[in-house]
Amino acid sequence: MPTVLILNGPNLNMLGLREPTIYGAETLKDLEARCCARAEALGLHCDFRQSNMEGELVGWIQQARDGAQGLILNAGAYTHTSVAIHDALRACELPVIEVHLSNIYKREPFRHHSYVSAVAQGVICGFGSHGYELALEALAAILNRNKKG
Amino acid sequence: MPTVLILNGPNLNMLGLREPTIYGAETLKDLEARCCARAEALGLHCDFRQSNMEGELVGWIQQARDGAQGLILNAGAYTHTSVAIHDALRACELPVIEVHLSNIYKREPFRHHSYVSAVAQGVICGFGSHGYELALEALAAILNRNKKG
Amino acid sequence: MPTVLILNGPNLNMLGLREPTIYGAETLKDLEARCCARAEALGLHCDFRQSNMEGELVGWIQQARDGAQGLILNAGAYTHTSVAIHDALRACELPVIEVHLSNIYKREPFRHHSYVSAVAQGVICGFGSHGYELALEALAAILNRNKKG
Amino acid sequence: MPTVLILNGPNLNMLGLREPTIYGAETLKDLEARCCARAEALGLHCDFRQSNMEGELVGWIQQARDGAQGLILNAGAYTHTSVAIHDALRACELPVIEVHLSNIYKREPFRHHSYVSAVAQGVICGFGSHGYELALEALAAILNRNKKG
Amino acid sequence: MPTVLILNGPNLNMLGLREPTIYGAETLKDLEARCCARAEALGLHCDFRQSNMEGELVGWIQQARDGAQGLILNAGAYTHTSVAIHDALRACELPVIEVHLSNIYKREPFRHHSYVSAVAQGVICGFGSHGYELALEALAAILNRNKKG
Amino acid sequence: MPTVLILNGPNLNMLGLREPTIYGAETLKDLEARCCARAEALGLHCDFRQSNMEGELVGWIQQARDGAQGLILNAGAYTHTSVAIHDALRACELPVIEVHLSNIYKREPFRHHSYVSAVAQGVICGFGSHGYELALEALAAILNRNKKG
Amino acid sequence: MPTVLILNGPNLNMLGLREPTIYGAETLKDLEARCCARAEALGLHCDFRQSNMEGELVGWIQQARDGAQGLILNAGAYTHTSVAIHDALRACELPVIEVHLSNIYKREPFRHHSYVSAVAQGVICGFGSHGYELALEALAAILNRNKKG
Amino acid sequence: MPTVLILNGPNLNMLGLREPTIYGAETLKDLEARCCARAEALGLHCDFRQSNMEGELVGWIQQARDGAQGLILNAGAYTHTSVAIHDALRACELPVIEVHLSNIYKREPFRHHSYVSAVAQGVICGFGSHGYELALEALAAILNRNKKG
Amino acid sequence: MPTVLILNGPNLNMLGLREPTIYGAETLKDLEARCCARAEALGLHCDFRQSNMEGELVGWIQQARDGAQGLILNAGAYTHTSVAIHDALRACELPVIEVHLSNIYKREPFRHHSYVSAVAQGVICGFGSHGYELALEALAAILNRNKKG
Amino acid sequence: MPTVLILNGPNLNMLGLREPTIYGAETLKDLEARCCARAEALGLHCDFRQSNMEGELVGWIQQARDGAQGLILNAGAYTHTSVAIHDALRACELPVIEVHLSNIYKREPFRHHSYVSAVAQGVICGFGSHGYELALEALAAILNRNKKG
Amino acid sequence: MPTVLILNGPNLNMLGLREPTIYGAETLKDLEARCCARAEALGLHCDFRQSNMEGELVGWIQQARDGAQGLILNAGAYTHTSVAIHDALRACELPVIEVHLSNIYKREPFRHHSYVSAVAQGVICGFGSHGYELALEALAAILNRNKKG
Amino acid sequence: MPTVLILNGPNLNMLGLREPTIYGAETLKDLEARCCARAEALGLHCDFRQSNMEGELVGWIQQARDGAQGLILNAGAYTHTSVAIHDALRACELPVIEVHLSNIYKREPFRHHSYVSAVAQGVICGFGSHGYELALEALAAILNRNKKG
Repeated sequence: MPTVLILNGPNLNMLGLREPTIYGAETLKDLEARCCARAEALGLHCDFRQSNMEGELVGWIQQARDGAQGLILNAGAYTHTSVAIHDALRACELPVIEVHLSNIYKREPFRHHSYVSAVAQGVICGFGSHGYELALEALAAILNRNKKG
Repeated sequence: MPTVLILNGPNLNMLGLREPTIYGAETLKDLEARCCARAEALGLHCDFRQSNMEGELVGWIQQARDGAQGLILNAGAYTHTSVAIHDALRACELPVIEVHLSNIYKREPFRHHSYVSAVAQGVICGFGSHGYELALEALAAILNRNKKG
Repeated sequence: MPTVLILNGPNLNMLGLREPTIYGAETLKDLEARCCARAEALGLHCDFRQSNMEGELVGWIQQARDGAQGLILNAGAYTHTSVAIHDALRACELPVIEVHLSNIYKREPFRHHSYVSAVAQGVICGFGSHGYELALEALAAILNRNKKG
Repeated sequence: MPTVLILNGPNLNMLGLREPTIYGAETLKDLEARCCARAEALGLHCDFRQSNMEGELVGWIQQARDGAQGLILNAGAYTHTSVAIHDALRACELPVIEVHLSNIYKREPFRHHSYVSAVAQGVICGFGSHGYELALEALAAILNRNKKG
Repeated sequence: MPTVLILNGPNLNMLGLREPTIYGAETLKDLEARCCARAEALGLHCDFRQSNMEGELVGWIQQARDGAQGLILNAGAYTHTSVAIHDALRACELPVIEVHLSNIYKREPFRHHSYVSAVAQGVICGFGSHGYELALEALAAILNRNKKG
Repeated sequence: MPTVLILNGPNLNMLGLREPTIYGAETLKDLEARCCARAEALGLHCDFRQSNMEGELVGWIQQARDGAQGLILNAGAYTHTSVAIHDALRACELPVIEVHLSNIYKREPFRHHSYVSAVAQGVICGFGSHGYELALEALAAILNRNKKG
Repeated sequence: MPTVLILNGPNLNMLGLREPTIYGAETLKDLEARCCARAEALGLHCDFRQSNMEGELVGWIQQARDGAQGLILNAGAYTHTSVAIHDALRACELPVIEVHLSNIYKREPFRHHSYVSAVAQGVICGFGSHGYELALEALAAILNRNKKG
Repeated sequence: MPTVLILNGPNLNMLGLREPTIYGAETLKDLEARCCARAEALGLHCDFRQSNMEGELVGWIQQARDGAQGLILNAGAYTHTSVAIHDALRACELPVIEVHLSNIYKREPFRHHSYVSAVAQGVICGFGSHGYELALEALAAILNRNKKG
Repeated sequence: MPTVLILNGPNLNMLGLREPTIYGAETLKDLEARCCARAEALGLHCDFRQSNMEGELVGWIQQARDGAQGLILNAGAYTHTSVAIHDALRACELPVIEVHLSNIYKREPFRHHSYVSAVAQGVICGFGSHGYELALEALAAILNRNKKG
Repeated sequence: MPTVLILNGPNLNMLGLREPTIYGAETLKDLEARCCARAEALGLHCDFRQSNMEGELVGWIQQARDGAQGLILNAGAYTHTSVAIHDALRACELPVIEVHLSNIYKREPFRHHSYVSAVAQGVICGFGSHGYELALEALAAILNRNKKG
Repeated sequence: MPTVLILNGPNLNMLGLREPTIYGAETLKDLEARCCARAEALGLHCDFRQSNMEGELVGWIQQARDGAQGLILNAGAYTHTSVAIHDALRACELPVIEVHLSNIYKREPFRHHSYVSAVAQGVICGFGSHGYELALEALAAILNRNKKG
Repeated sequence: MPTVLILNGPNLNMLGLREPTIYGAETLKDLEARCCARAEALGLHCDFRQSNMEGELVGWIQQARDGAQGLILNAGAYTHTSVAIHDALRACELPVIEVHLSNIYKREPFRHHSYVSAVAQGVICGFGSHGYELALEALAAILNRNKKG
């Protein structure tokens, strides 16, 4: 049963607490539960983590090469500033999907550029927590295709 | 049964014919079939069209207000140049999802800006034709939520 | 009796339907009626058209040389992107007046540059449909002056 | 009888004297007479002034709040540089119409940006002194509409 | 006998009528005749068309893959704005030559960038209608070389 | 007795040691003592911390919501690069005051933009360690006003 | 008893009258009274002025060298455009503190650059009229230090 | 005997007082004396003025048309910001020479652009007060040439 | 028999030796032979030169005025950097044709700007050594036309 | 025996594992061994560390002042984003040498700017792990020279 | 008797021949004669040269240190492109005066930046060949002042 | 015994003479001697040259292909402006090492971009003349590796 690592960046531990009109009332715990249920239905094991530390996220991406078959990443604010995460993703040789709760292209200009997009397979944004489920479904399809192909 | 209008912009009629290593071997007809099947499974009716004409796409978006409950748009090259499509989307008052077959953020810089993103609910790109199915699933969830809410 | 061609670009067929708080409740039909009445009062014949197609607008501007004595143009979104309309206007050798319902300089930055302004005699914007009447009055004065001069 | 304040910025006192092939032979006195006649016909009182001083124009705009019902402004060169006039207009709470004798968008690039446009109701340019009359007509319509509405 | 498709963009139907001091007195009909004569002399069949519609030009480029062996394109104003034409050319897998009557690098800055150049084999500009003949000669050489090579 | 959290970013632990001609001879310990004394005089409790880690600062800002009534932040070099701190501040719903020892607008251009300023109530810079005392006084006034208001 | 010159730039004479939701209900007179009281408590004499004229402010700054020991400046809109004030400040050889009622970094981009900051000792903004009192306290500390040092 | 108007802009009344290491110990009075002596030796009458007011300088330039045969202008800080002075110079139809005491191209970047240069006959900078004498000599030569030619 | 000067800039002496997959196997000698043959067929004398020295190319262009009737220039890398060649061309009063072996618009961005284009009659690029023959043909036509006209 | 601190930034722990065609097959352990051997031969003690954490690198640089005589830094991705490392280096008062395995100027544009270069003595890049040995040799020479000088 | 080296850059050998309406009918020989006469009158020896070669000009500037007391430079087109001349001037430790025949600030934008200005004592432009005489006079004054001072 | 060509660009012949506090007291002759000694110790023959002429440097790089096995280049000011040297290096197919005496990234912004870096194997700067020795050592290692590999 393939493992999917789902990584969440800075401030996502505040989910459900901050700005609920934008991000909804669901907490990070709720989101984890929702992801695990969907993963299981798709035949995937889900390893769900959050950190406010750029270096810790870099470390987890490095370890994913051995311990996971796919990666879903919501890098939060580091999306827009971290060349280190960009480099780690480039080296990890797994299918990577970038997710954002909100549609970042509707927000401030400094959120329109992502260092993640250029090294991800695909991008999903603007669908709230449902976006994580869509990413899991997309990843399952990619893993199936790779297994066959 | 709600209707989803799926619009495809210029050159997408060449799908399966041009650059198959990038876009895959599926033709536009195949894609339409795949979308209709998935739509039906989700309880949606699917109206699938393509045009090379900017003005014709604008017209279809205008008509969507009366004839559809949701819109999925792959505007192709007009994504990056059409203020007219941007205006039409802003006025159409439907949930809109932007789809691209390839990950546009991995391509030439002039494809990194989209006039559609700022007026769409969400964006899905880089998953080939499967991205259309993810968009349908996302749209079904939005329509369900709106019906309830 | 001189003919004035009044051309309207993309999405103006939605007038009165979309965003009435910005554009007012008047429809394009109402606007046409108002223009024809004012034109008649000024001794002008009014030929009023709308298209979502850039190429069709280009064609009408080309034909104006033979069939009209003046041109009033609200190019809508093409104002900001169309070098083709710019070229057609440059060649048409008629007095041209640019009109916009809203004050485009108060809106998004990509609406602040106009390819029409540099080849128009004058610009009127921000007065809603009344701006068309002002343009007719300005055009009547120009045609009178030219006739005398 | 409502009062309209018509303000003219630097170098407009040279009207009719400098570059008559561009600005025409009319002097500022002539222009004032023409404006007063038209204002009267529209049921408006016209208070017409000119200054080369940025600070004096700012002061007049500040005073307009108490002594006038509308403002027509040709800020001349300050159009392109004066943040102070921009601020004063924002605070004056009257309908403001920006006028230019020439079509500024046909001239040097540094004249294409206006600090006035973003705080004006509408813009009229390129019609010579007739533009002032069009502005008066537009203002009369706005004042009528406000009185009714 | 190989077919060469010669496509002309917006406003080129006005050739010989507009701005003859720049573009010469030759009409589009004259140009077509001149091209057909030269093509025949080089052993080529010439299919010569013009459209003001971006989408129609895109369609013709798409069809060229089956019906032509080479493409000569004067995209007029769309040269500078059309990503859709750029995409269609990239997919058409024919030798493409970009032609302009005037030297676009001597004109306004917004005409200095071409979306066509990056996907054309070569560029010829500034030689009036003679440039089309040079393009035909260049194309004949390329087709000969390809046949041999 | 309300608590004020005073956070100091990277390299501020070197205070008094590095570049004393710019930053003075006071160490971070001295600064803490000075702040606590002033806070007490103003009826405030002061919680004073320093970290070189972006993520640790983000965490402390998140916790402030529950454990503090106001926040004074000298983010050091992260002022100019951290979108993560920007996001955390936006969500913390406390009055925030940005402080810098030196006048950052007198230094290298890359120090002129601050991600903190746009989400702070006010900014104080250039007064050395005295700036922290001014910030405490400003915060006391704000907390008093809020209590009353 | 040292004298502090407090200068206020264009439109600040409208304080309390314009946009009270942003700037508060206090008038310039009220602000002057508040400043004089605080100054006296700190052992300073306060000379408080306002002008809409860039040249008049320049003149006052020039005179400050002989008549004052410190300068507090809220240059209003001239903050962002006046090279003349920048030059005068550079030559005046007094400690200068820049004050703004609102946090200018939260407002339009053209207010983010200040010609004053680079020649001021420090900057205080966003604290309403209280910011003037903080500036007086900061200035008192600087004058004390200078007297000793 | 032809009259030369020598105009000096903001802060030049501080000459000899501010930053003597840069501008020298000569006062504006000294400079005036030096200019008058040299003018007389060249057979010219010299009218020497200074103002901190942009509008007053504009006025003097306007009047120069009737009262002077040539103009030497050191516009100080307005050199870099005043479109109004630029316009006034363009209309004054006299030979104009731009002078600066220091070499402005060695100073801050915002002093490298001059609105005066594009409407002056020539530019002289970096020679201190001697530059005014060189300008007088140049002007004498131009006036002689014009008289002959 | 008119003389055509064909000038080649830096590194073109390496033709056929460097990067043959891009530039072909032909050497500069071969190219010269091919040009002379074609020139002769067109009734032209061909003077063919190469230099790595910017100043030597400038000198040859200066001399062309007396010794040649037309100029074909492939300035190599100096195309993108030499204002001196630009100036020399502007003064030489001959028809000038710019040639490049490769399509420079397909290469690095710093090769997209040419100082030659703005002072050439026309541009031909992307056709390898055949482009020189096309240039000769174009030049012959221009010389013929000038002789007649 | 002087100590050299060799610091390695994010993702360098993946050396030999990721992208071996670019970075070679040597691991970080191998690199450390190679550096220690070379250091010993040059009479230096080598302290070799790696971290993915920006703040930890900042801390090590701060401590170097007391525990080391020279610093060799390969900051990896933080090279391009860390103002905090820039500040720490500026304060550490040791000779600093910047090293990169690859030639960063051949890579993506966002890797062409380094916050380290402006505060380093010298830069060595593009020589793989041999670059560390060159840096050690350079540092030995500098330390010798300082000892003498 | 001090020697002044007067250097002229590319295309100045064409003086009097090219574009006489701009540059006048004087040849470089005439200019040399005029300069030598004026130099002699001022007690200076004049060494006057011209080259189209950037490197030759660099060499002459290097030699000036030993063989001349002052330098007058009209670098022609190299003014705008040569960092090498900039460096040579910086090292030559002589007073340098930049001269241009025309007012370069009235010409194309790429002539508005000069690499010479930042390392010259002063700049004189727009006075035709008379500018060289003004430069000689300025240089004589500087040499006199230096001798005394 | 392999030959290394060491090329030095403009102004390096002034070494030891100009600005010795920056570049040291060593002359170019001294540097050559130092390089030859080190080269010999490494089993390399050293051919050391200098030119102020861009075209001469281009010629030497072209000849290196036949007469040398490696190239060390300090292009001086041409580093930042020469596309011609860039092209020559790209074609020379030897290992190239870029050297600078000073750390160019600490100097003026126009020295931060190098046309050499993108076509060099590696870059060494900031170590004075010792940098040439490091480059020789690096080159010896590369030549050894190539011989083996």
